[in-house]
Amino acid sequence: MTPPFQQRFVARAAERSPLCVGIDPAAESLTGWGLADDIPGLRAFCERMVEACAPLVAVVKPQAAFFERHGPAGMEVLRQTVEIAQSRGALVIIDAKRGDISTTAAAYADAFLGPRSPFGGDAMTLSAYLGLGSLAPFFEVAQRDGAGVFVVVRSSNPEGSVLQQARLPDGSSVAEHLADQVTARNRAEAPSGLGLIGAVLGATQGSEAAALADRLPNSLLLVPGIGAQGATMDDVRAIFGRHYARIIPSVSRGIARAGPAVADLKRAVERLIAEARGA
Amino acid sequence: MTPPFQQRFVARAAERSPLCVGIDPAAESLTGWGLADDIPGLRAFCERMVEACAPLVAVVKPQAAFFERHGPAGMEVLRQTVEIAQSRGALVIIDAKRGDISTTAAAYADAFLGPRSPFGGDAMTLSAYLGLGSLAPFFEVAQRDGAGVFVVVRSSNPEGSVLQQARLPDGSSVAEHLADQVTARNRAEAPSGLGLIGAVLGATQGSEAAALADRLPNSLLLVPGIGAQGATMDDVRAIFGRHYARIIPSVSRGIARAGPAVADLKRAVERLIAEARGA
Repeated sequence: MTPPFQQRFVARAAERSPLCVGIDPAAESLTGWGLADDIPGLRAFCERMVEACAPLVAVVKPQAAFFERHGPAGMEVLRQTVEIAQSRGALVIIDAKRGDISTTAAAYADAFLGPRSPFGGDAMTLSAYLGLGSLAPFFEVAQRDGAGVFVVVRSSNPEGSVLQQARLPDGSSVAEHLADQVTARNRAEAPSGLGLIGAVLGATQGSEAAALADRLPNSLLLVPGIGAQGATMDDVRAIFGRHYARIIPSVSRGIARAGPAVADLKRAVERLIAEARGA
Repeated sequence: MTPPFQQRFVARAAERSPLCVGIDPAAESLTGWGLADDIPGLRAFCERMVEACAPLVAVVKPQAAFFERHGPAGMEVLRQTVEIAQSRGALVIIDAKRGDISTTAAAYADAFLGPRSPFGGDAMTLSAYLGLGSLAPFFEVAQRDGAGVFVVVRSSNPEGSVLQQARLPDGSSVAEHLADQVTARNRAEAPSGLGLIGAVLGATQGSEAAALADRLPNSLLLVPGIGAQGATMDDVRAIFGRHYARIIPSVSRGIARAGPAVADLKRAVERLIAEARGA
């Protein structure tokens, strides 16, 4: 039996670093490295990112869209990328932001979560416009297969604020309500310590993200937006203070920009690992 | 140049029927037809559904999750299903409920929208937890390639209500706010008539869905939840009244349950076409 994702993450973060490196093979990233925007270019980008990063950090996070963009053959490169990253000792969060109901939700979970799934992710990201309750089939599959899930609670982009800050009749915001629902479910399973459901909180959201972290005491917190989106590792430490041990700081373009040479990518990762450690 | 999706839909609906048949090859649907839950079973289910339905209706709507569940080879069956349905004269809405920001959103649009994309959909569904503004890259690709987009505004499942009914400072709900943003953008492009952005409204939401249809006068309205989820074609007519000409009523399991014989599937579709016509 695979141990729960949150336990595996904590062990890996202690051995290595909690840092998560995003693998975002956007067209501009491929051409920026002198690669063609095609399947061989996609594969070369991912192999180089994985070779440089997967042996050093706890987690890598491929973005599904950039593989899906290349059709079924691109999705095969995603599958291979997950496999190679895991063979180098990293956990893999597939950034897919899927969300649907009932058997459809279960089908997405079957696609991405756990060693029995075709894409084999250790965890995936989820989107909750249809309500946290609609995501229950993901939680069941994750629980069964020792996988993790990260629900987007507060996103890093400015256009998300109106919706995520809308109010329920009890005065809580949509983001706060999702956080409370996540915590209720995690507490029922693991009264102290980390539960199944993690959350995504944008590093660009400052004190609002910090207050949400307070409401999510039993969750791993995946924090994107470091580097290209403007937040620094010092910001993350300042914002999340005492929650820092549960944070998975995630950086993507900030690493890829140092490429394409593997040695340069490694140096960029090592520099961020040192920053994350507070060195 | 491909004419806009909304124009193509209106023409096809007039020639045939506005009905949309969902292609939902869930594991239970495959085994229910005596097929194995594998790639040949998936392909056989989709071929039979498309053979029976695509020559009769305006739209078929494959659910991406049930293909993704079978890995890259399943995604190849999705690509083929889109192609075959289009060769039989149906438009294809890929039900993917994707949503993300920036180049990631653009990558999903490049994956699914238009004849130049690998999956070749005529339209796709979108999810807006990151805000309607985050979906702008989808709108750009759709506009350029004559494709359609359908943003989930009010879902058919009960768990979606708390979030979709949360209130903004101006008193509007999240669903109403999304509807108003959709209408503002559609009006800027097409002051009268149908604009680029369609909406998904659950048929199970009754008067609330009707009021949202009033706020979306320039949108095609994709209405799932007919059949297996409990709403009937009469409900759709009762709820949407004068908006009926813009409605794309969508049924999935209600058709598949009549299979596996193609003749039985055709009869089930023809019965629903007659109901949709009000015969």
